[in-house]
Amino acid sequence: MDLMVPLQTGGETPLYEQIYEYIKKEIRSGGLRAAVRLPSTRRLAEHLKVSRSTTQLAYDQLLAEGYIEAVPCRGYFVCETEGLLEISPGMGILPGTEKEKRPERELSRTGEKAAMDFSPGGIDLDSFPYGIWRKISKDTLVDGNRAMLLAGDRQGELSLREAVRDYLHAARGVSCTAEQIVIGAGNEYLLMLLMGVLGRSRKIAMESPTYKQAYRVLAGQGAEVVPVEMDGRGMKTDDLERSGADTAYVMPSHQFPTGIVMPVRRRQELLKWACEKEGRFLIEDDYDSEFRYKGKPVPALQGMGREDKVIYLGTFSQSIAAAIRISYMVLPPSLVPVYREQAGFYASTVSRIDQNILYQFLVKGHFERHLNRMRAVYREKHDSLLTALRPLERDFLVSGEYAGLHLLLTHRRAPERELIRLAGEAGAKVYGLSSCFIGDPEKASGSRTVLLGYASLTKDEILQGADRLVRAWNGL
Amino acid sequence: MDLMVPLQTGGETPLYEQIYEYIKKEIRSGGLRAAVRLPSTRRLAEHLKVSRSTTQLAYDQLLAEGYIEAVPCRGYFVCETEGLLEISPGMGILPGTEKEKRPERELSRTGEKAAMDFSPGGIDLDSFPYGIWRKISKDTLVDGNRAMLLAGDRQGELSLREAVRDYLHAARGVSCTAEQIVIGAGNEYLLMLLMGVLGRSRKIAMESPTYKQAYRVLAGQGAEVVPVEMDGRGMKTDDLERSGADTAYVMPSHQFPTGIVMPVRRRQELLKWACEKEGRFLIEDDYDSEFRYKGKPVPALQGMGREDKVIYLGTFSQSIAAAIRISYMVLPPSLVPVYREQAGFYASTVSRIDQNILYQFLVKGHFERHLNRMRAVYREKHDSLLTALRPLERDFLVSGEYAGLHLLLTHRRAPERELIRLAGEAGAKVYGLSSCFIGDPEKASGSRTVLLGYASLTKDEILQGADRLVRAWNGL
Repeated sequence: MDLMVPLQTGGETPLYEQIYEYIKKEIRSGGLRAAVRLPSTRRLAEHLKVSRSTTQLAYDQLLAEGYIEAVPCRGYFVCETEGLLEISPGMGILPGTEKEKRPERELSRTGEKAAMDFSPGGIDLDSFPYGIWRKISKDTLVDGNRAMLLAGDRQGELSLREAVRDYLHAARGVSCTAEQIVIGAGNEYLLMLLMGVLGRSRKIAMESPTYKQAYRVLAGQGAEVVPVEMDGRGMKTDDLERSGADTAYVMPSHQFPTGIVMPVRRRQELLKWACEKEGRFLIEDDYDSEFRYKGKPVPALQGMGREDKVIYLGTFSQSIAAAIRISYMVLPPSLVPVYREQAGFYASTVSRIDQNILYQFLVKGHFERHLNRMRAVYREKHDSLLTALRPLERDFLVSGEYAGLHLLLTHRRAPERELIRLAGEAGAKVYGLSSCFIGDPEKASGSRTVLLGYASLTKDEILQGADRLVRAWNGL
Repeated sequence: MDLMVPLQTGGETPLYEQIYEYIKKEIRSGGLRAAVRLPSTRRLAEHLKVSRSTTQLAYDQLLAEGYIEAVPCRGYFVCETEGLLEISPGMGILPGTEKEKRPERELSRTGEKAAMDFSPGGIDLDSFPYGIWRKISKDTLVDGNRAMLLAGDRQGELSLREAVRDYLHAARGVSCTAEQIVIGAGNEYLLMLLMGVLGRSRKIAMESPTYKQAYRVLAGQGAEVVPVEMDGRGMKTDDLERSGADTAYVMPSHQFPTGIVMPVRRRQELLKWACEKEGRFLIEDDYDSEFRYKGKPVPALQGMGREDKVIYLGTFSQSIAAAIRISYMVLPPSLVPVYREQAGFYASTVSRIDQNILYQFLVKGHFERHLNRMRAVYREKHDSLLTALRPLERDFLVSGEYAGLHLLLTHRRAPERELIRLAGEAGAKVYGLSSCFIGDPEKASGSRTVLLGYASLTKDEILQGADRLVRAWNGL
């Protein structure tokens, strides 16, 4: 089968994106039905007279969003995507970027700092725009700017909430008003606040392995947390249904720690589950939506047309710096009055000065430029690491490498602790997947997977560190 | 009298600062006693062979910090400075100062802003040290200062906790180690955290009227809150015993909103109550310990020898600015491991940059100077208001005037709402005590008391506002 993609050369839209859009539209309209096999990337490239990398990029994007699937040795097939909703066209798209979930703050303290620390929690701070931040700080603290020192809006300054709304709309397809946004000092604080809104008697489903920090907060706030099995597409909805949970915490854009991107179909199943009963909610933690290395970012679950069912969480910790401590939560419209009643009296936990600095950083275009720069920086580190790890390909499976600031290596036989030990002896610190499991501790015990974060290492350190790993593990 | 100030020219310290330091030291050491007249600025300038503006600068600084006073047509005199001690790491006592509990953030939103707003929640921001804050911010954000951007110590930076420990020791007699201190973005957040440490099944006694915001947080976190009667000395311990509570929340230094200072004997009774059963705790909210107008500050309950029974809370919201959002909690040693287990995983809610700015502000002596200056500012406002309200003495009882940034006026007969209405008609906004009651709503209904905050008004506004109140209420 050949695809008649009408390509416009010399226009604003890249060729791969035109191909991606065309095929997506065909799938949506039913022109391409489920289980249909697509032409190979090579054949399509020849047919369209474009390079193969162009068709590969288009297919990668479709894969990432769950429109098509790759079957080894057979090719690409259209997925079942009936009833898909589309993000409003014409919106600006910021580069996808990925923030890391910082489990290192648990993990890295358990051991001694090794020479080359592949902590999955670091970010690159060499590129932090000190000068711009300093300038904005200085301008904020002008003499007599009393407004900056008064207690501000409890929900967060309106101007900042509007800027976050615009960013989320453009970059993540999130559909909300500034009224729905709450600014807070970190996701953990916002989850605490959220439990006050939802009520502490919630039964919350979480994938296992998951982001342990969120698990601790939710359990610590008194919620009953139930682990739900996941497959290669994320949380299994049958198991979710059986779990009796009324809330599900998921990371569809890039699950932590596995790096799985939840396909559109699974997202729809989750939304369907949430819509089946009054009071069911999805918590979408979009922690690392900013850094992607293939194609366009996957839009947020929140923007799929059922924003009344989704509580959306995001943070500037990884896109700017963890220390600035600013996160945001988008509540469904129905929960806004509940928030006002149950938690509206809590004063904002973010200094008004800091809110203003971030606001200026956003609206003056610095954030967009910073993200673009960081994406290039991370892409280079990501590619360097992948290349340097090639000698391990025979015995390891690499995963989670489409996005984010870490990837996973799974050995054919060797247990995680053996991998960590050998790496440590060679002067490289890596992190085990097992610490991210919740529920049955037996499940974690078979782990043969380690996490490698590369964001805070320089390119030279990455190459040296990868070299140590290759030497440490080659004889396994 | 001539002063033999040993001046070093060409050194790092400006001449005016050397003169200021010399005179301050003389006053502190008793070399210059209260009521002694200083030489005029002109004469001192001639004597020291410096310009008159130099001596004027030194005197202005001493005036601002309350070491000397200017008597029109007579000159400068040394003040009584018994309460004005010094903090240097490890020793010294800071002047008692009072931070306001900001009920205005409830209260002031209920009505329209009147011309003269006696909100009990404001502070004086005209004296905020913008220049110093800007300078420290700038120095913190130097290029490549990566440490400032990394996720820091969850409990708060150790250096800041040590500086807070020194301050609390010197100024409040609090006995603790830096290990016991947790830094957080506001008292409300720290109370949330604390409920995770103590467990949400607590039964917490609070005075009525009380600080409503703390009531909302504790109740919102799932604790059972029981109102306990108070007399002129604070919470009644017999009633506390009968209430069945296992925790008591009190403000011994200056109860909000009544302004009652709890006598030592009542404090001992509270401690006795706490010691009688395992697991009983006192929460001491020392929210406004910085501003006092008579004598030395009353040391904290925490420092009375049973620090294993007291959870101590304080904030920089009122001594510096609400918007900076930095508070601290001192845990009893026995609760430190419980905190680590139950809540130690929560990342700090205060930006590391802001923690560093505050740290520098504390250890470089700026905070001490700022407090001394603010005490003088608030004392003047406090005295002006009291004087201007004298015509009302016949029908009103003034209370809560020993400390803090507000006082209370209780009429012989007229109900609170009548006082508020008449004041409003005359162009002055005052706040009713009734909104601070918890428990039985009947108790609040008989209130004949209004709160008048004066911190955020200028002296002229205070005089004008008081004049309006006198006219509004004189015919009652």
